[in-house]
Amino acid sequence: MNSVSVACCQLAPKMGDTAYNKKLAEQAIRKAASNGANIIVLPELMQSGYVFNNKEEALRLSQTIEQAPREWAQLAQQLNIVIIAGFCERDCNNQLYISAALACADGRLNIYRKVHLWNAEKHIFNAGANPPAVIDTAFGKIAVMICYDQEFPEWVRLAALAGADLICMPVNWPDSPRPINERPMEIVRVQANAAVNRVFIAACDRAGTERSIDWVGGSVIVDADGYPLTPLLRNNNQAIEGTIYAKVDIKEARNKSISEMNDVHADRISALYLDILKA
Amino acid sequence: MNSVSVACCQLAPKMGDTAYNKKLAEQAIRKAASNGANIIVLPELMQSGYVFNNKEEALRLSQTIEQAPREWAQLAQQLNIVIIAGFCERDCNNQLYISAALACADGRLNIYRKVHLWNAEKHIFNAGANPPAVIDTAFGKIAVMICYDQEFPEWVRLAALAGADLICMPVNWPDSPRPINERPMEIVRVQANAAVNRVFIAACDRAGTERSIDWVGGSVIVDADGYPLTPLLRNNNQAIEGTIYAKVDIKEARNKSISEMNDVHADRISALYLDILKA
Repeated sequence: MNSVSVACCQLAPKMGDTAYNKKLAEQAIRKAASNGANIIVLPELMQSGYVFNNKEEALRLSQTIEQAPREWAQLAQQLNIVIIAGFCERDCNNQLYISAALACADGRLNIYRKVHLWNAEKHIFNAGANPPAVIDTAFGKIAVMICYDQEFPEWVRLAALAGADLICMPVNWPDSPRPINERPMEIVRVQANAAVNRVFIAACDRAGTERSIDWVGGSVIVDADGYPLTPLLRNNNQAIEGTIYAKVDIKEARNKSISEMNDVHADRISALYLDILKA
Repeated sequence: MNSVSVACCQLAPKMGDTAYNKKLAEQAIRKAASNGANIIVLPELMQSGYVFNNKEEALRLSQTIEQAPREWAQLAQQLNIVIIAGFCERDCNNQLYISAALACADGRLNIYRKVHLWNAEKHIFNAGANPPAVIDTAFGKIAVMICYDQEFPEWVRLAALAGADLICMPVNWPDSPRPINERPMEIVRVQANAAVNRVFIAACDRAGTERSIDWVGGSVIVDADGYPLTPLLRNNNQAIEGTIYAKVDIKEARNKSISEMNDVHADRISALYLDILKA
C-alpha cells in the first residue's frame, strides 16, 4: 500500500456533450490504469462541462449518482483502482450540486458536494453542507474537495485532521493574469495546504477553451513537503490535455513530524483559534 | 496613507554581541527610513542572535521591553516610521519569550510573544498566550507574528479577520534542502497566507552563518494576491545582507472581493469549521 501511483487526467470535456465526455473520461481512465495508476483524478464537472448559460441548461446536463458515478464505480472495480471525478449532480428534488464521486476498487461509492461555490455557480447550484468524508481505500485514506474549497485552509485542515493521506481535488481553474514567471496562485495554495498538513494533494484541472473561458491547466501532484512532483501541462500559454503521474509513499503523510520537537498537527493550539469561528 | 513603503532589513546579527546588533539594527533602520520606508521590519531575535546554547545564555542576552524595544520606539518617533523587530524578552519573573516589538511613530509600543515555538526553543522559551494585536498605525493596520507562527493558517486568519492590512513577520528561517529551482516553502506559505486573506505580508529573515546554521534568506514582501513584490536576497546559494523595499496600496487589503460574487472572508462557512478546534 505504501507506494501508490497517482494520476491526474487534464482533459478537455465538451460543453454539453455528455456522450463525448463519458468516452473521453473512460479512455483516459483506462489509459492511466494501464500505465499503472492506482488512483486517478479527473476534472470538476467532467461529464457536463462548466460554463452553463443558466440553471435550465445545468439541469438538463445533470445526472443522478446512478449515472456517471455508478459507471465510474464499475470501472474502478473492473480495473482495481480508485477514481475521483466531478459531475453535475441532480438530487431527487431536482436540486443541483457540483459534486465529485470517489469510486473505490471494492465497489464503494462516496459523493462529495462542493461547499464553497465560485461566482455564478451560486445562481445555479446548491452548496454542499458537509465536510469531505475520509475514505479508507486500498491505496490510502483519501478525502475529496473541489476547486474553490481549497482556498479555505480550514477546509483542508479538517480533512487532514480527520486522517486524510491524500486530498484529491477535481478543479476547473479559470485562467487569469499573473506576473510573468510566477507559478499560478492556485498551485501555490495547493503547495501550502499540503505542507502545513503534511498531506499529499492531487489537483486535476482541465484544458480546452469553453465559451471563451481558458483554464490554468494547473493539474499538479504535490508531496507532503508541499513540492510539486509533476510538470505543468501548459504549452504556448495554454492548458493542454495530458496525464501527469506521481508515485507517492503514503506513509510519509502519516508522519506529521517536521523537527525533533515539532509536529504540524500536535503543535496547533486550538484553544487560541476560537475566533476563526466568528461569522 | 494608501501608498505605503515597506522595507525588510535582512541582517546578520552576531550571536551574543548586543552592542553590535543594536548598532546594526539602528543603521539599517536609519538607512531604510532615509530611502523613504514608512514601515521597517527586522529579523526575529535581532538583538541577541538565535542559536542559544542553553537557557542561561538566553537569559544573559535577554532584555526587558524597556531596553531594545524602548530604543526602537524612540527611533520610530524620531523618524516618523513604524518599526517591527524581534528581541529576546525577559519578563519580571525572569521568564523568556521570543518577542517582537511594534513601535509606532506616535510613541505607542506593542509587544507580541511568539506562540508556536520551533524545536529547541521549547527548552528555553515560554510560549506566548495571545493572538497578535492589530495596531492601527498611521500607515495601516498591522499585526505581528513570528516565524513558525505562520505555518498555522489559523493564526494568519485570526489576524486578517481582526482587520490587519499588513502582517509583519520577523523570522529566522534555518535553511534546509529543497528541490532545485523551487522557491523555499517558507515563502510559498507566506504567499498562500496572503492570497487566502487578501492581506499584505512582509517577512524579514536574516543572513550570516550562526553556530553552523545557515538561513533561507527568504525576506519577502507579497501583495494581497500573494505574489512577491521583491527579489530574493541570496547569492552563491547563501543568504546575504540587504534591504528589500515595496510600495503597497493598503486599501487593496480592505477589499476582500475576488469575483463578482466572492469574498475571501465572507465566503467562509465557519459553522462547518468547528472540528478544527479539536485538540
